[in-house]
Amino acid sequence: MTTHSISAPGKVILSGEHAVVYGYPALVSAVNMRLTLSLKAKSSKKTTKPILKMPTAEYISAYLKQNYAVNIHSDIPRGSGLGSSAAYAVSLATAYLSLRGKPTKKHINDLAFQLEKSHHGNPSGVDNTACTYGGYLWFRKEHQQLHLMHQLPITKKIQCFLLQSGQPKETTKDMIAYVAEQRKMNPEKYKKIFDKIESITKTWLAYMFDEVSRHTLLEAVRENHRLLSALGVVSPKASALIAEIEKIGGSAKITGAGGKSDGSGMLLIFHDDKEKLTKFAQKKKLKMYPVQLGERGVILT
Amino acid sequence: MTTHSISAPGKVILSGEHAVVYGYPALVSAVNMRLTLSLKAKSSKKTTKPILKMPTAEYISAYLKQNYAVNIHSDIPRGSGLGSSAAYAVSLATAYLSLRGKPTKKHINDLAFQLEKSHHGNPSGVDNTACTYGGYLWFRKEHQQLHLMHQLPITKKIQCFLLQSGQPKETTKDMIAYVAEQRKMNPEKYKKIFDKIESITKTWLAYMFDEVSRHTLLEAVRENHRLLSALGVVSPKASALIAEIEKIGGSAKITGAGGKSDGSGMLLIFHDDKEKLTKFAQKKKLKMYPVQLGERGVILT
Repeated sequence: MTTHSISAPGKVILSGEHAVVYGYPALVSAVNMRLTLSLKAKSSKKTTKPILKMPTAEYISAYLKQNYAVNIHSDIPRGSGLGSSAAYAVSLATAYLSLRGKPTKKHINDLAFQLEKSHHGNPSGVDNTACTYGGYLWFRKEHQQLHLMHQLPITKKIQCFLLQSGQPKETTKDMIAYVAEQRKMNPEKYKKIFDKIESITKTWLAYMFDEVSRHTLLEAVRENHRLLSALGVVSPKASALIAEIEKIGGSAKITGAGGKSDGSGMLLIFHDDKEKLTKFAQKKKLKMYPVQLGERGVILT
Repeated sequence: MTTHSISAPGKVILSGEHAVVYGYPALVSAVNMRLTLSLKAKSSKKTTKPILKMPTAEYISAYLKQNYAVNIHSDIPRGSGLGSSAAYAVSLATAYLSLRGKPTKKHINDLAFQLEKSHHGNPSGVDNTACTYGGYLWFRKEHQQLHLMHQLPITKKIQCFLLQSGQPKETTKDMIAYVAEQRKMNPEKYKKIFDKIESITKTWLAYMFDEVSRHTLLEAVRENHRLLSALGVVSPKASALIAEIEKIGGSAKITGAGGKSDGSGMLLIFHDDKEKLTKFAQKKKLKMYPVQLGERGVILT
């Protein structure tokens, strides 16, 4: 009886959100929250080989269910910008392609991108690429038709925390449109903010290459928060939380598009004292996840 | 009797020189000037298989000469920033690796980069990459340790001209140091110039993707010349030439690091009337080369 198990990681944006829309770089990391898809062949049935080259997600699901007992487990919180849908697409693509042969990561990533496209309209391709390859991903949209992604040659594992500051009322699309509108009224100001965000994203690179200290990085994360606030994508609720986290010795910022009227989604937090931060989250009755950055990509066993 | 023939193209920088030093993008193209390396096995001798994994240029040359009659022909002008040394390194790498098996372009490029490094100290890797893969190359030095290069998915062939404005008295290193010094004194001004150069490099992308007209591109090339002049890397001699070329309906700029006290090296020229431009060059007694951009990379036959 054939069993397959596929596991794909979630991802977080470390630096560069919003700026990335305007051609500035973003740094993304796979995290050790994973989605697992298990297939157990139905012993009573003879498995038919999948035939389509560019199947839809629906086709793959139907095909898998017809031939296998399918089980999906995920510890990637949904709707929090952590790439849960990409992890699913990457897992589906890996399952399907591995039944047709031995797929390369490029094959998997290409099909997962197709699946993402049919569900999300116009995704950047960052999420599926991060989930497929894992590690740290450098991303730049040099042009509408030229989204450059580069796997960093870095194996550093970095501990951090994710804290749910509350589901934003606005969608990612809303937030991007909001920044675009504000930027139109004051392009000079926004250019300065984005330039500074780029410099922070490059501080991350310097940290990855062991050229600056952790202290320098954490200062950069705090500055990143201030710049995101200046963009208007951090709600008063999330701002207050981040101020408290800074007060107890941490560095924090939103990760993703943010939100301005209620919650701002997940916060990315760095703090040397796990216990202190855990107590803080408990007191606030907020869900917190200790995570490790630089997690490996999709695994097929 | 085995004969091998390897041919590698030269390259030109279309946009982004100097800015590229500070993390801005550059666009580079392979050109249809090529270096050809032919090997004819010496019939009297039994060829020994090459054994070193990371050979030096000297080792490869000696090995080839021991076993083959070697002939090199190049129509890439030397010392003009057209990648003649990279074309040689790529050809050597291809010759050597193909005698050990069937090398991928990645293998060739990696070895060529090693060969370039041992000769030039700290090359960016752009030249060998353009010569190996051909076409159009997008390049950005995101970090000292992260030189990102991306082959553009573009097959457009573009006609242009190269005109020798005179060998610069300064080396590339001198010119880069000169700009760095000036920039230190007025970083704001230089940032503005580089930002504008980036926007021109992206106009090239838009032209490649058929989103802007040739007229828009040629205006951008003229603007690029003005910005390079503002950087102080275009000599009075080269400036005067470019002014005349503009007067007769062309667009021109230096390509490469330039020069400030005498010649500024090769000029990249776009002009719709080949005859007019040829007459101009003849009158000036300057060597002109009609070239085609987007040439294919190294070829082994």
